[in-house]
Amino acid sequence: MIIPRTGIGIDVHAFGEEGTELWVAGLHWPGELGLSGHSDGDVVAHAAADALFSASGTGDLGSNFGVDRPDMKGASGVLILSEAAAIVREAGFEIGNVAIQLIGNRPKFAPRRDEANQALTEAAGAPVTVTATTTDKLGLTGRSEGVAALATALVYPKNS
Amino acid sequence: MIIPRTGIGIDVHAFGEEGTELWVAGLHWPGELGLSGHSDGDVVAHAAADALFSASGTGDLGSNFGVDRPDMKGASGVLILSEAAAIVREAGFEIGNVAIQLIGNRPKFAPRRDEANQALTEAAGAPVTVTATTTDKLGLTGRSEGVAALATALVYPKNS
Amino acid sequence: MIIPRTGIGIDVHAFGEEGTELWVAGLHWPGELGLSGHSDGDVVAHAAADALFSASGTGDLGSNFGVDRPDMKGASGVLILSEAAAIVREAGFEIGNVAIQLIGNRPKFAPRRDEANQALTEAAGAPVTVTATTTDKLGLTGRSEGVAALATALVYPKNS
Repeated sequence: MIIPRTGIGIDVHAFGEEGTELWVAGLHWPGELGLSGHSDGDVVAHAAADALFSASGTGDLGSNFGVDRPDMKGASGVLILSEAAAIVREAGFEIGNVAIQLIGNRPKFAPRRDEANQALTEAAGAPVTVTATTTDKLGLTGRSEGVAALATALVYPKNS
Repeated sequence: MIIPRTGIGIDVHAFGEEGTELWVAGLHWPGELGLSGHSDGDVVAHAAADALFSASGTGDLGSNFGVDRPDMKGASGVLILSEAAAIVREAGFEIGNVAIQLIGNRPKFAPRRDEANQALTEAAGAPVTVTATTTDKLGLTGRSEGVAALATALVYPKNS
Repeated sequence: MIIPRTGIGIDVHAFGEEGTELWVAGLHWPGELGLSGHSDGDVVAHAAADALFSASGTGDLGSNFGVDRPDMKGASGVLILSEAAAIVREAGFEIGNVAIQLIGNRPKFAPRRDEANQALTEAAGAPVTVTATTTDKLGLTGRSEGVAALATALVYPKNS
């Protein structure tokens, strides 16, 4: 009997200074204002990684990619997600899927959904799906102070 | 071996103008101030539908019920959830369950929980459960600017 | 064929008055400002309990531990989570796992993660994992008005 495990992750980044490049959901968005952050601020990839850590009990973004991993400073969302997936598999789990919702006024996500799903699915080595929504002008995302992403992941024990 | 898939969805709507009728969790709430939105603003049903799309990789509310579906303009939450469930099944998935938490100061949800669960379970053709909470007067829901709903869904491949 | 069920829960508490003790994730945090609330304000344990109720369709924190259970007034997070787990099992479900993300600037969580996971895992009688994040100074948690926790849980029918 296989009992999968579920996990959850949220990430929020403020918009950065004029001229910052935007990277979200593993993609570059030319002409869009970017997000602040030590890394590229890819909230979608970060929430996805945290949901995987959460499901598998392998710490979180901070404990895995913090000061002990200087090589991950400024890492892309795709690299963060693929490293997270490797850590989760190393701990004895297979990845069922990861689902993330991008929450914010910008960028307009729908036209590039397939591209994003493909980039993140390759990074995780498992199905990753991204959806998008707005918050009716309310809250930090509604006021365009930043962008948030909410993720859930399902993993299950290997060789089960 | 059946590996289910998990999905997530959030929705937020601001309270509307005086006289707007409130529809939440598939139910009409007489005497309560309603929510703004092109549809009836049923955040619970919308978050549920988005969690189903998220789990199954079938797009999201905007891509499924946007400009290409003028028939869905102003659609009720129950109709949106039942159409979403049909799209997910058409894509080859069975629905395990959907769970949604209503976040806000109004309406007082508990007395009508069974009624809401029944209306949404019928709409989805699968178990739907609704819970409710408040945010200690903080944030957009705590200040009664609007109402939010947070949902997760579990689906699995048909004929598996 | 076992089809598990997924659930979700969020909880938010404002920081309390000077001198309030902090209890989060089943642990006492000496020297940290505590959270307001009728109970000890343990957002992590409360979100975990609500995710279990959500997955199993057994009501929510308010309906289970409200006015009808005066014995639960001021209850610790550990007690709330263990009582919630008992209610869910009584309703015919086994608990697969619970995963919670603590969202806020304080306390600094990582050094006590193992201790927290152990305390909550014992309370639930099933694997509980806690992660932590911040929100880039945005929103109610970013402004240090309070602390939030977001949880998901997986349960499945007994004797299945």
